[in-house]
Amino acid sequence: MRRTLWITCFLLAAQFSIAADQPRARDLGIPFDGTPGPLNAITDVAGVTVGHTTLIEDLEDGRAVRTGVTAVLPRGKDTLLRPVFGGWFALNGNGEMTGTTWLEESGQLEGPVMLTNTHSVGTVHQATIAWRIRQGEPDASGYWWALPVVAETWDGHLNDINGFHVKAEHVDAALDGAASGAVAEGNVGGGTGMVCYEFKGGIGTASRMVDVLGSSYTVGVLVQANYGLREQLRISGVPVGRYLREHRIYSEPDPDVDGTGSIIVVVATDAPLLPHQLKRIARRAALGLGRNGSIASNGSGDIFVAFSTADVSLGRADQLLDHQSIPNDAISSLFGATVEAVEEAIINALIAARDMTGDQGHYAKALPHDALVEVMTSHAYGP
Amino acid sequence: MRRTLWITCFLLAAQFSIAADQPRARDLGIPFDGTPGPLNAITDVAGVTVGHTTLIEDLEDGRAVRTGVTAVLPRGKDTLLRPVFGGWFALNGNGEMTGTTWLEESGQLEGPVMLTNTHSVGTVHQATIAWRIRQGEPDASGYWWALPVVAETWDGHLNDINGFHVKAEHVDAALDGAASGAVAEGNVGGGTGMVCYEFKGGIGTASRMVDVLGSSYTVGVLVQANYGLREQLRISGVPVGRYLREHRIYSEPDPDVDGTGSIIVVVATDAPLLPHQLKRIARRAALGLGRNGSIASNGSGDIFVAFSTADVSLGRADQLLDHQSIPNDAISSLFGATVEAVEEAIINALIAARDMTGDQGHYAKALPHDALVEVMTSHAYGP
Amino acid sequence: MRRTLWITCFLLAAQFSIAADQPRARDLGIPFDGTPGPLNAITDVAGVTVGHTTLIEDLEDGRAVRTGVTAVLPRGKDTLLRPVFGGWFALNGNGEMTGTTWLEESGQLEGPVMLTNTHSVGTVHQATIAWRIRQGEPDASGYWWALPVVAETWDGHLNDINGFHVKAEHVDAALDGAASGAVAEGNVGGGTGMVCYEFKGGIGTASRMVDVLGSSYTVGVLVQANYGLREQLRISGVPVGRYLREHRIYSEPDPDVDGTGSIIVVVATDAPLLPHQLKRIARRAALGLGRNGSIASNGSGDIFVAFSTADVSLGRADQLLDHQSIPNDAISSLFGATVEAVEEAIINALIAARDMTGDQGHYAKALPHDALVEVMTSHAYGP
Amino acid sequence: MRRTLWITCFLLAAQFSIAADQPRARDLGIPFDGTPGPLNAITDVAGVTVGHTTLIEDLEDGRAVRTGVTAVLPRGKDTLLRPVFGGWFALNGNGEMTGTTWLEESGQLEGPVMLTNTHSVGTVHQATIAWRIRQGEPDASGYWWALPVVAETWDGHLNDINGFHVKAEHVDAALDGAASGAVAEGNVGGGTGMVCYEFKGGIGTASRMVDVLGSSYTVGVLVQANYGLREQLRISGVPVGRYLREHRIYSEPDPDVDGTGSIIVVVATDAPLLPHQLKRIARRAALGLGRNGSIASNGSGDIFVAFSTADVSLGRADQLLDHQSIPNDAISSLFGATVEAVEEAIINALIAARDMTGDQGHYAKALPHDALVEVMTSHAYGP
Repeated sequence: MRRTLWITCFLLAAQFSIAADQPRARDLGIPFDGTPGPLNAITDVAGVTVGHTTLIEDLEDGRAVRTGVTAVLPRGKDTLLRPVFGGWFALNGNGEMTGTTWLEESGQLEGPVMLTNTHSVGTVHQATIAWRIRQGEPDASGYWWALPVVAETWDGHLNDINGFHVKAEHVDAALDGAASGAVAEGNVGGGTGMVCYEFKGGIGTASRMVDVLGSSYTVGVLVQANYGLREQLRISGVPVGRYLREHRIYSEPDPDVDGTGSIIVVVATDAPLLPHQLKRIARRAALGLGRNGSIASNGSGDIFVAFSTADVSLGRADQLLDHQSIPNDAISSLFGATVEAVEEAIINALIAARDMTGDQGHYAKALPHDALVEVMTSHAYGP
Repeated sequence: MRRTLWITCFLLAAQFSIAADQPRARDLGIPFDGTPGPLNAITDVAGVTVGHTTLIEDLEDGRAVRTGVTAVLPRGKDTLLRPVFGGWFALNGNGEMTGTTWLEESGQLEGPVMLTNTHSVGTVHQATIAWRIRQGEPDASGYWWALPVVAETWDGHLNDINGFHVKAEHVDAALDGAASGAVAEGNVGGGTGMVCYEFKGGIGTASRMVDVLGSSYTVGVLVQANYGLREQLRISGVPVGRYLREHRIYSEPDPDVDGTGSIIVVVATDAPLLPHQLKRIARRAALGLGRNGSIASNGSGDIFVAFSTADVSLGRADQLLDHQSIPNDAISSLFGATVEAVEEAIINALIAARDMTGDQGHYAKALPHDALVEVMTSHAYGP
Repeated sequence: MRRTLWITCFLLAAQFSIAADQPRARDLGIPFDGTPGPLNAITDVAGVTVGHTTLIEDLEDGRAVRTGVTAVLPRGKDTLLRPVFGGWFALNGNGEMTGTTWLEESGQLEGPVMLTNTHSVGTVHQATIAWRIRQGEPDASGYWWALPVVAETWDGHLNDINGFHVKAEHVDAALDGAASGAVAEGNVGGGTGMVCYEFKGGIGTASRMVDVLGSSYTVGVLVQANYGLREQLRISGVPVGRYLREHRIYSEPDPDVDGTGSIIVVVATDAPLLPHQLKRIARRAALGLGRNGSIASNGSGDIFVAFSTADVSLGRADQLLDHQSIPNDAISSLFGATVEAVEEAIINALIAARDMTGDQGHYAKALPHDALVEVMTSHAYGP
Repeated sequence: MRRTLWITCFLLAAQFSIAADQPRARDLGIPFDGTPGPLNAITDVAGVTVGHTTLIEDLEDGRAVRTGVTAVLPRGKDTLLRPVFGGWFALNGNGEMTGTTWLEESGQLEGPVMLTNTHSVGTVHQATIAWRIRQGEPDASGYWWALPVVAETWDGHLNDINGFHVKAEHVDAALDGAASGAVAEGNVGGGTGMVCYEFKGGIGTASRMVDVLGSSYTVGVLVQANYGLREQLRISGVPVGRYLREHRIYSEPDPDVDGTGSIIVVVATDAPLLPHQLKRIARRAALGLGRNGSIASNGSGDIFVAFSTADVSLGRADQLLDHQSIPNDAISSLFGATVEAVEEAIINALIAARDMTGDQGHYAKALPHDALVEVMTSHAYGP
C-alpha cells in the first residue's frame, strides 16, 4: 500500500516554523562577507515568492520517491502579468534549463522559474503551460504562447528518477503555494533528493543588501545544489572536505565519477538592470561556486538565471517602454553581492539538509554541524 | 464520439507511396542551385531515419486536432548507442529547442531530434526519456541521464494547442516508426498544422551532394516551416508573395502580427566535421531563409541544429577518441550546400502542403501550384 | 619619387559633388523593398557622420597603394561624450572587429567604428586611441581607457597590404573629416581596394524609414563589401552572377578559393533599442546577405555591428540612467528595414565602384551597369 | 637625457637565474591542490615558449615607462607552421583580446598570444603581423592573412600609458627571444607595470600534471594579473586582504573604483582536446579567480584563452585532418588542473612582484612575504 507523503508548501511552511530553531550557516559562526537582508533569502527581494512541493514516499522493491518541485515567481501573483528583465549563463551546460533561448533573445523572463529533477522536466514544462493557461491571458501579441523556464538537477541516487513521480498537481501546488517570507531549505521541493559534495544537498538561499548611488538594493539567491566531490568542499575558504571524509557517496574519488551532479542558481534583485547587465550578474554565480571549491566537472549542469523586478514597464506592446538602469561603472557592488550570496546559499543548503535514505537504500549523510564547527575553529574561524 | 485519425509513420509511408505522383518544387520547374541526392531528402545522409506521427481529428465545439510529432534519428536504430557531433544556432530565439545547453557544451547530440507543437514540448520531452530508458543503456558514466532535444513551432491557428493532444504513444510511434527512404512532406508529423508565409506549411526536406577533397559528401535538411508574412515570400528570387495575395491569414499585414511563426531546421551530413564546424553549418540556415525573404520577425523561433554522422568514435569514455575533420579552408562547399538545401526544403514544404481547415474553422490555403508556375514563368523561370 | 594621392574626405566630398550624376542601384531601376530616407544613406540617422581617407598611389616594383580608412561616428562630434547602445554579430568570424568584447559586455559603443584593411588594424587602433586622448576626457571612471572598434576586410589583391601604408594621419583625417550628408561610395575609404563577387567592391550605404507605434524611425547601413564569388551574386533575386561572367578574379571558381573576402556591416538607427535588441538588429544583416546570394564562405569575415543614437543618458556614472525601448512585439519592422538596407547597401557598393588596376597589375572590373540592366530586364525588372 | 632600460628576455633570463633564490608561493608554505610540473610553469607543456620585453625608464616631468610585451608561442619556433586548437572565454569583457572572433569561428589559434598594455595593442598587433610576414609563409589558402591575438591590461597607474612606449622592436624581441624553461614572473614583460589586489602584480605562471585514461598530461597557465581590491584577496582560502591593509592604491575602498583592473589568463595543455573542449577549459579560469576572491568587477577585463598542442594535423588544407580527443566523461581532472593552476599562477605573480615607483611617483607595494606567512600561519597554514 502506498503511503503518500506529499508535503506541500503549506505543510513545509509549518515544518519551517517548527524548525525555526534550526541553525543556518552563519548561526554556526561561519563567516561570510557582506550584509544579508532580513530573511537572508531570495524573498528579501520584494515580490519574489517561492513554493515547494516535496515528494517523499517509499514504494515496493526498494524504490523510493525523494523528489519534488520548486517554483520561484519573480513577481508573485503578478508574475504572468508583467515580465521581468532577465539573463542566464551556463558555466557547464550538462543540464537543462528550458526557455533560455527566448530569455536570451527577448531579455525577458515571462513566467516562473521551475526547479525539479532531470526526468521530470517534461511534466513540469507542460503543467506550467497548463497552469498559465488557467491563470492568465494571452500575451501582448494576442496569442497563447508559452516557453516556460524549467531547470533540473539529477536526483537518481536517492530518488526513483525513472519512475516519473512528479505529476501536474505537484507543479500546481508549488505554483499556487508560492509565498513570500522565509524559505524552507535542504530536503525540500526540487532539492528533496539532491546531494552536494557527497553530503546531503538541496535547496539553499541567501541575500545581500548593497548601496548603489545612494539607494539600497537587495540581491537574493536560491540554489538547488547537487554537485561536487567531497575533497573539493571549501567553506569560507577552509578546505572542510579534506577533514570530513566519512560517508562519501563515491567510494573511489575519481574526478570523473561525479558525472551526475549539477547546480541551478536563481538570482533575483530589485536593482534596475537591463538584460545584458543581468547576464553579467548570472555569470558571477561562477565565482561563488569557485569560492566553495567547485571545478564545474563535466557532469555538472551549472546553470544560472538572474532577473530584476525593478522594471514595471514590460508586458505592453502598444507604447514605448520606460526603463532605468544602474550605470555599468556603478554595478560592481551588485556583482560582489551576487558572489557572496551564492557562496552562502550553497552552504545554507548543506547546513539545512538532513540525512536521507532513499532509492534502493542509498544513503546521503548531512554535513555534521559539530564536526564542521570543529574544523572551522581549528582554522581560526567559528563561534 | 471521437473519430481518431492517428496516422502513424507507417500509414504515412503508404500515403507517400500513393502520393508519389505529387510534385515537389523542382518538378514544377522551380530552379535551385546545386546537386541534390537521390531522394532530395535528409535521408540521403546514410543512417538518418525520420518518423512522423500525424494527428488529425475533429472534436466538439469546433475544436480540431491538427498536430503531431516528427522524429529525426541521426543514426537510426543506433542513435542511442553512438552520439553524433552537433551544433546549433538561434537566428531568432522565440522558440524552444531543449537540450541545446548540453549540445553546446558537449558538442554532441546524444539522441533524436524531436519536433512538435509549442505546448507539447513537455510531453515529447518526457516520452523521449521514457523511450530511451526502455530502449537503451545508461550512458558512459554509468548513469541514466537524458537531456533530449525537443523543438517546436506554434500551430495554434489550426490546432487546439491548449488541448495537449500529443500523448506519449504518439511520440513512441514517431520514434519506433522512423525509417530511411523518402520522407513525407507537408501536413505531416510536427508540421501537420503549421502555416508558412500565410500559406499552409509543414515539413519539407531537401539535400545536396558536394565533392570535398576528392570525396563526395551529402548535406540533408529537414524543416518544420511555420513562419513569414505573405509579401515576404521569395521563391528562387522571385517575389512570389506580392503576386499571390489571396487567402491571407492575417488580414492586416502588420509586420508585428506574425508573432506566432517559427522554423526549425535540422541539418544532417556525413562529412566529417567537428562541433565548432557544425555550429558554422547550422548558422548557414539563416542564409537559406534570407533567400526566401525571411526577416526573422520577433515572433519567429528560428532555431537550427546540425549534426554529422561521420564520427563513429563517440560514446566511449574509456579511451581516447579518434576523429577526422575537413579543414576549414575546404569547408565552404558544405556551407553552400546547406544554404541551398534549406532554401529548397522550405519551398518543398510549401509545395507539398495541402489546404487545411482546422480549429474553430480556421483555414490555411496551400500555395497554388498553377499560379506559382505562372508567376515564375513571367519572371523568366518555369517549366 | 612618390606621387602621393592621399585623398581625404574633403577631396572626396568634392569628388562626390562632381559625381552627383553617378547612378546608384535604384537609379538603374533595380527594385528594392521599403522606403529609403532622403539620402538613402547611414547619415539619414541624425547625428551620424562618416569620414573617408582614400589612399591611391603607385609605388616602385609594381606595388600599389589602394586602401584607406573609413570612420563612422555615431554622434558626430559628440561621439566621445556620450556612448550609444550597441550590439554585434559574426555570421562568419574570419575577420577582426576589435572592441567587441567590451561592446558585448557593456552594451555600449563608446567611440567611432573604424574600417580599414586587415593589416592596418593596429595602426588604426592606436591612432584612434591617440585621437581620443587629444579630443576627449577620461571616462566616467576617471581613467583613460580606450578599447576602440576597428574592423577590417582584406584588400591584398589590389593593395600592397604588407606595406602598411595606412598611417596615423590618415586615421585622423577620416575622424576629423567625418560629416553628415551624402556618403561617398565605391572605391573610397576603407573600401578603396575591395572586391565583391569578383567585381570591384567597396563602401556602400542605404537606409530605410519605418513607422513604429506612431513614430517614424530610420535605419541606416554602411558596408565595406569585399566578399563572394561571381556565380553567387543575386540582385533583387535575379541570379546576375551567372550571366555576367567576364573578368573574374578567380579563374577557377573553387568555392574554397574565396578565402580572402569579408564584409563589415554597420547599422545605425534612431529607434530606441536596448543592447540585446541591437544584437538582434545586427543579426539581421545575415538575411540581407542571404538575399544577395552569400554563403558566408570560410574565408569571409562577415561581422556586423549595430547601434542606436536614441539614448542620451549614457556616459554618466553618478546617477541612474533613463532609457526607452521599443517593445519586442513592435520591433519586426525594424528587422525588415535592416534586411532591406543591407541588401541595397551592398548593391550600391557594386554600382558605385569603378574599375581598378592595383598591386602587381591586378585588376578588378566594376559591375557593368548596362549589362546589369539587360539581365534585370530579361527577368522582368529594370527601368 | 633618456636612460634606456630595455630589458629583453635574454637579460631577464640572466635576471632570473640570478633570482633563482627568490621564493615562489609554495616556497613560502602556501598550500595548493594538485601536482605541479617540473617548472610549475606554462613551459611545462612541451613546445610552449615565452618571451618578455620589459621596459623600465624614467622620463622628464615625472613620466615613467613601466610596461612591456609578453609573447606566448604555443609551438615555439613552429608556431606559425602549425596552428593549435584553441578556445576563449570572457568572464568580464572590459578589455581587449584581438583575434578571438576568428579563434571562436575556426577553433584554431594560428600564432602567438601577445600580452601588453591597453594602449599598445595597436603597435603589438601590427608588429606581430610584420613579424609573421618576415618569418613565415602565406597560409593554406595561399594568402597572407593575419589576425593576431593581442590582449591587454591597463598599467596607467605606474606607466605613462598615453606615451605609447611599446615599439615594434620590443615586440620582435619578445617573439624572437621566447624560450622554453623557467619563466620570469612579476614585474616583467606585459606585466611590468601591473597592479593586483592593490599590491604590485604582473606575470605569474603555474602548472599541473594529471593522469587521464592512463596517460599523463600537463596543464600550464600564465597570467598577466592586474585586478582586484585589497579586501577581496584570498590566498588558499585565507582572507589575507583583510589583514594586510597597508599601502593600498585606492584610498577609499569603493568597489566601483577598481575600474582599471583586468586579468589575462593563457592556458596551455598537451592533452588532446577539441576546440569546444578548450572553451570549457578556458571557462574554468573563472573558478580559479573565484578561489582568490575575485568578483570580476565592472572595470576588469577578465579574458581567458586556452590551447592544446596535441594536435599536429592542423595547417593543411589539402586532406582530411586526423584528431584525437579526451572523451567528455574523462575531462574533469583537466578542469580541476586548470582551476588549481590559475589559482596558483595569480599568487605566484603577487609573490614574485617587487615594489615599484612609477609614473608621477605612483607607488605599488609588493605583497610582503613575512606578513603573509604570519597571516597564513595564524589560520593553520604556513611553513
